Amino acid sequence: MRQIEILDSSLRDGAQAEGIFYSLEDKLRIAYALDHIGIRYIEAGNPASNPKDMELFRRIAEHPLQQANLVAFGATRKPGVQVQEDAGCAALMGAGTEYVSIFGKSWDLHVAQVLKTSLAENLQMIRETISYFSDAGKKVFFDAEHFFDGYRNNPSYAIQTVLAAEQAGAVRIILCDTNGGSFPQEIAAVVEAVKKACHVPLGIHCHNDMDCAVAASIMAVEAGCEQVQGTFLGYGERCGNANLSAIIPTLQLKKKYQCIPSTLLPELTHTARYIAEVANYMIPPASPYVGKSAFSHKGGMHVDGVQKLQRSFEHIDPETVGNRRNLLVSEMAGRTAILNRITRIDPSVTKFSPVTEKIISQIKEMEYHGYQFESALASVDVLIQKELGRMKEYFTLRHFKIIGEQNEDGIDRLASALVKIRVGDREEITAAEGAGPVHALDRALRKALEVFYPSLAKVRLIDYKVRVMTPEDATAATVRVLIESTDGENVWTTVGASPDIIEASWKALVDSMEYKLLKDEQNA
Amino acid sequence: MRQIEILDSSLRDGAQAEGIFYSLEDKLRIAYALDHIGIRYIEAGNPASNPKDMELFRRIAEHPLQQANLVAFGATRKPGVQVQEDAGCAALMGAGTEYVSIFGKSWDLHVAQVLKTSLAENLQMIRETISYFSDAGKKVFFDAEHFFDGYRNNPSYAIQTVLAAEQAGAVRIILCDTNGGSFPQEIAAVVEAVKKACHVPLGIHCHNDMDCAVAASIMAVEAGCEQVQGTFLGYGERCGNANLSAIIPTLQLKKKYQCIPSTLLPELTHTARYIAEVANYMIPPASPYVGKSAFSHKGGMHVDGVQKLQRSFEHIDPETVGNRRNLLVSEMAGRTAILNRITRIDPSVTKFSPVTEKIISQIKEMEYHGYQFESALASVDVLIQKELGRMKEYFTLRHFKIIGEQNEDGIDRLASALVKIRVGDREEITAAEGAGPVHALDRALRKALEVFYPSLAKVRLIDYKVRVMTPEDATAATVRVLIESTDGENVWTTVGASPDIIEASWKALVDSMEYKLLKDEQNA
Repeated sequence: MRQIEILDSSLRDGAQAEGIFYSLEDKLRIAYALDHIGIRYIEAGNPASNPKDMELFRRIAEHPLQQANLVAFGATRKPGVQVQEDAGCAALMGAGTEYVSIFGKSWDLHVAQVLKTSLAENLQMIRETISYFSDAGKKVFFDAEHFFDGYRNNPSYAIQTVLAAEQAGAVRIILCDTNGGSFPQEIAAVVEAVKKACHVPLGIHCHNDMDCAVAASIMAVEAGCEQVQGTFLGYGERCGNANLSAIIPTLQLKKKYQCIPSTLLPELTHTARYIAEVANYMIPPASPYVGKSAFSHKGGMHVDGVQKLQRSFEHIDPETVGNRRNLLVSEMAGRTAILNRITRIDPSVTKFSPVTEKIISQIKEMEYHGYQFESALASVDVLIQKELGRMKEYFTLRHFKIIGEQNEDGIDRLASALVKIRVGDREEITAAEGAGPVHALDRALRKALEVFYPSLAKVRLIDYKVRVMTPEDATAATVRVLIESTDGENVWTTVGASPDIIEASWKALVDSMEYKLLKDEQNA
Repeated sequence: MRQIEILDSSLRDGAQAEGIFYSLEDKLRIAYALDHIGIRYIEAGNPASNPKDMELFRRIAEHPLQQANLVAFGATRKPGVQVQEDAGCAALMGAGTEYVSIFGKSWDLHVAQVLKTSLAENLQMIRETISYFSDAGKKVFFDAEHFFDGYRNNPSYAIQTVLAAEQAGAVRIILCDTNGGSFPQEIAAVVEAVKKACHVPLGIHCHNDMDCAVAASIMAVEAGCEQVQGTFLGYGERCGNANLSAIIPTLQLKKKYQCIPSTLLPELTHTARYIAEVANYMIPPASPYVGKSAFSHKGGMHVDGVQKLQRSFEHIDPETVGNRRNLLVSEMAGRTAILNRITRIDPSVTKFSPVTEKIISQIKEMEYHGYQFESALASVDVLIQKELGRMKEYFTLRHFKIIGEQNEDGIDRLASALVKIRVGDREEITAAEGAGPVHALDRALRKALEVFYPSLAKVRLIDYKVRVMTPEDATAATVRVLIESTDGENVWTTVGASPDIIEASWKALVDSMEYKLLKDEQNA
């Protein structure tokens, strides 16, 4: 098995993504998560452009990574400056890492029009900067910025830049498609050409502006690159960087390269979701391998096929990457998926059991009234548990009331909710305010329930979706609410539907609380 | 410029995506939007698996597409059944389209283990079904399902299936990577092999399970495919289909193929966002070409570079696809579109007029707070008219209050609203009940206003959409409400945003009423 080195730049290039803002603690958590799953190099920051990163390097030095090597990132010296006197180089040296990435210009156009210096001086900048770090005992990666654009425009100059890096002692040369506008085939061909001229191991660094970064990275490996750079979830400047959570399993499961230890591959999905949570980044549900929908089957023929034969509609077994198959319970998929869900709870039930018919017809009836269960499996489980008589009544609603009011120009806007519940023979009444009536209701309900069930204090709603289903009825339309909840460990989704958004939200909230209480009891 | 046919399956394969759930009206809107931007083929549904699609075909027949051809989708006949007696084929014929897509099995494993029939019978099914539709005068596309998996397993049988389709009169043969597990290079090589055996123009249909669907589709075109199938936003079963909003501009701008009329390419971003809004699908911000962040520059050097020289950090000019550059430090966008809207109302205003700056900064501010004006031009016009001092104050809110309450089991559920407004020096207070608090509020407001403006009695809300924008804040997230209204003649859309759904709805309702009153006055 050929080893492929993975360099993750979630903390450096990933921080360039719109909407990503890390605290120091966030960065530490992500670094240790990447280390834990066996990423070889973690590019943690650019001490010159982000002085706070210095503290990060210091903190990691206190609790060193177990498997990964830490890499600090910076630019070649500025034109016309002595490398020893360049502030950026000094900051980079100060990070104290064994590995440094130095980026320099490989596109002649950039040298002339952005750096505004001569082609010769740029080569000198590359040479001197790399020698400087190399002579200080560091292992230097040279990031050849815009290499493919440069090669297209002036191949001989682009090659000169990497040769300058090689001569100065770089241990890896990374060819970067900085603008994300190069085609995979072109990238593969250029990698082959560079390999003929240069003897240092090559790496590839792609951006996703044409949605080709993953394919290009894989083809670059096949053409001879030994290092792949990207970000674990693919986020980065503009359209993002090459998505390592797609590249790693593809190379490892399908091309037999080793990127991370094989025993850790089943932690891929968990790691992706953990990093997303720390970064406050939403993984698109359809993300390959790690997305919530990556192995969701909805079409009736697909649901039927995948049950007859797993590989009929799945290119890999979801468990190899720690994800799981979802047979979506919907009108299209029908009975098979529902029965499958029931037997996960009670294996003794068959499709001939009367309760099966009862559950199916109840789900159909609810779908007719606007429910949609395909992504709200916690609501399905609650419903099944109730029908199987396996669930006790945790609480009942006695009464709730929400009030929203507003005066001229939105001044004195107020939303509040009052909730009264009964648990056993005890009653609890309480109230809360919120940003809107649903928020107030959510708060009041949990406040009342926590009196009886303290574990609900850990529950947090992480997603709230509203869909209007019969818009032709306008404001009297049926509203479907989907709520995603977490207790820090598990994530579950519940659904409610009603012409009244308050009632729809209430139903989804109740299912969410009941689901959590049920799980607690099962795990007790 | 070589023509590449685009087939969009947002309405068929796209409907298989987790979380996508179209109403009939949604489907019609998406079909006409795809038609408008010049998509050649629109695969609108499968009448056999979804009987409601029949109504869609009937409705489109009443108002035919201008540029696109409508395609209905279905399977080959079932094993051992006469094609004339196959219910699915009958439903497909009943759709009445000139074009039909017939999918059949090309993977021997599927024939044996999913269809559970013989390889010979499967060939017969393909042959007879295609002849049946071909003889009826239809143009038949053959979708060779799992073609690449089949070719890997048994190349000679896979080729036999497409030859059976060719002999039976298929006008296009589409090679499908149904499981999304084939590599782009492999796909290109297989396309070249099939082209040697088969003389019907080929198409490519990829899924994104390895994040390679776009690259694979492009490489298939370069290898000789003349049709590309996908969905406009890339959504579909599991990880989705090939993303046409990435493929079209790449082929058109960089490879000089023509997919849609060149003059319509600048409508790409608008069309993507419109379809997303209708489908209630969130376009990931980093989506190539059409995403909100696709041309966002955050890194200081990138911001600096792109200002010195556009192509230094952008692979294409964002305006060619109707998107815009976002310099995250100093925003400068959307001015042209807004100025354009202002001069429609007052041609004497120029970009140097102080009011232009004022309107633009107000819109930016509101966008920052969750507004989105792209599909709510009536709200833009109301805002502009107010800033130009051309609009009188039709009414002011004095106070409203909504109350929602509910007892055990949803019995005694009640939603009511009280509204007090002032018009000139008169005040009116009234109340109404509704299916939910927003419905009650809508009714009460119109009841109060009709006392002064009887023409509002004709206004009817025809669409009401809710979108949660910052779902990580769950029930305290910002909510955007879009309302579509009609007076029987015109249709207009307004928007409101707030953390409180009641307030957001209120703002959109007020804009809608004001827009109607303004139009009445202009037409008087």
